[in-house]
Amino acid sequence: MIKNPEHRPWQVLSSEYLDKKPWFTVRKESVQLPSGVVVPDWYIFEFPKWINVIAITKDGKFVMISQYRHGLGTTSYELVAGVCDPNETPEQSAKRELLEESGYGGGEWSEYMRVCPNPTNHNNISYTFLAIGVERVAEQNTEDTEDIDVHLLSRQEVRYLLDNNMMPQALHVAPLWRWFAENR
Amino acid sequence: MIKNPEHRPWQVLSSEYLDKKPWFTVRKESVQLPSGVVVPDWYIFEFPKWINVIAITKDGKFVMISQYRHGLGTTSYELVAGVCDPNETPEQSAKRELLEESGYGGGEWSEYMRVCPNPTNHNNISYTFLAIGVERVAEQNTEDTEDIDVHLLSRQEVRYLLDNNMMPQALHVAPLWRWFAENR
Repeated sequence: MIKNPEHRPWQVLSSEYLDKKPWFTVRKESVQLPSGVVVPDWYIFEFPKWINVIAITKDGKFVMISQYRHGLGTTSYELVAGVCDPNETPEQSAKRELLEESGYGGGEWSEYMRVCPNPTNHNNISYTFLAIGVERVAEQNTEDTEDIDVHLLSRQEVRYLLDNNMMPQALHVAPLWRWFAENR
Repeated sequence: MIKNPEHRPWQVLSSEYLDKKPWFTVRKESVQLPSGVVVPDWYIFEFPKWINVIAITKDGKFVMISQYRHGLGTTSYELVAGVCDPNETPEQSAKRELLEESGYGGGEWSEYMRVCPNPTNHNNISYTFLAIGVERVAEQNTEDTEDIDVHLLSRQEVRYLLDNNMMPQALHVAPLWRWFAENR
């Protein structure tokens, strides 16, 4: 229905890793635009695939979490989310994270959205899964660096959070607004 | 309607800037969770406020752009977007960027969404504005590091891009899905 826009990639003149830590793997590149203009320092933040889950119980409650987020310095409602381990598919990661962070599992799963945190300076994709009819199957089992509260919110409560900019995480806001666009 | 979740912030034990460049200002902090667990290296990427614009012409076309994005290595349709200059309000930045990147202006403006690129490791907010009834008022006037095509897309074309994960930028996908949730 609509064709892709013209692709005019940049040429990489030089590339170096500044660091290669789990949450701080940074590539600095000198790049040249098709016009000939050179940008000597373009920074790319490398991350693994990320996932999050819109998990809805049999009785229509959204399984949400809250935790302090140190980048912004705030605590807000979020979807269950996490990082794909090397040998996992995104769906396997999403099911593992939902179980670990909330104790919920089961239900009918489907991939719902693929976005990038920021195509300008990130190299990774965040996958959203829709899990319908989940139920509490275990105790929460988080890592000692995680401090997570679980919340079961109604459709109306989730919509209120979205309507009032009370969920700051763009990677979660995008698929939730899609859900409300598709579920009247 | 719904109260904020309990806020249990971390204590910052030490903080240092690794660099302070325009697109690479990074703070490394040692933090302590309420449980007493210490994370010795938490990285925070500092950026100015960002903006983007859902701009719709008098005849209902969405003013979109496309440009190569080196982080992901792709070229896709995007909203007009940019960075707030120090002395600008987000709305002033959005009007400037729309004019510079597309040549469009005028219309009725309102703030439409506030999200964070990633509350985990980013400190900034991205503001979306809705501009209804814009028209072509000038020539495109981009910087020499920008290589931008302008596209006027129908509502159906924008929805097709969203339905098929053809727009990777989460900061643009979120407000566009909100628009489709609110505009049947």
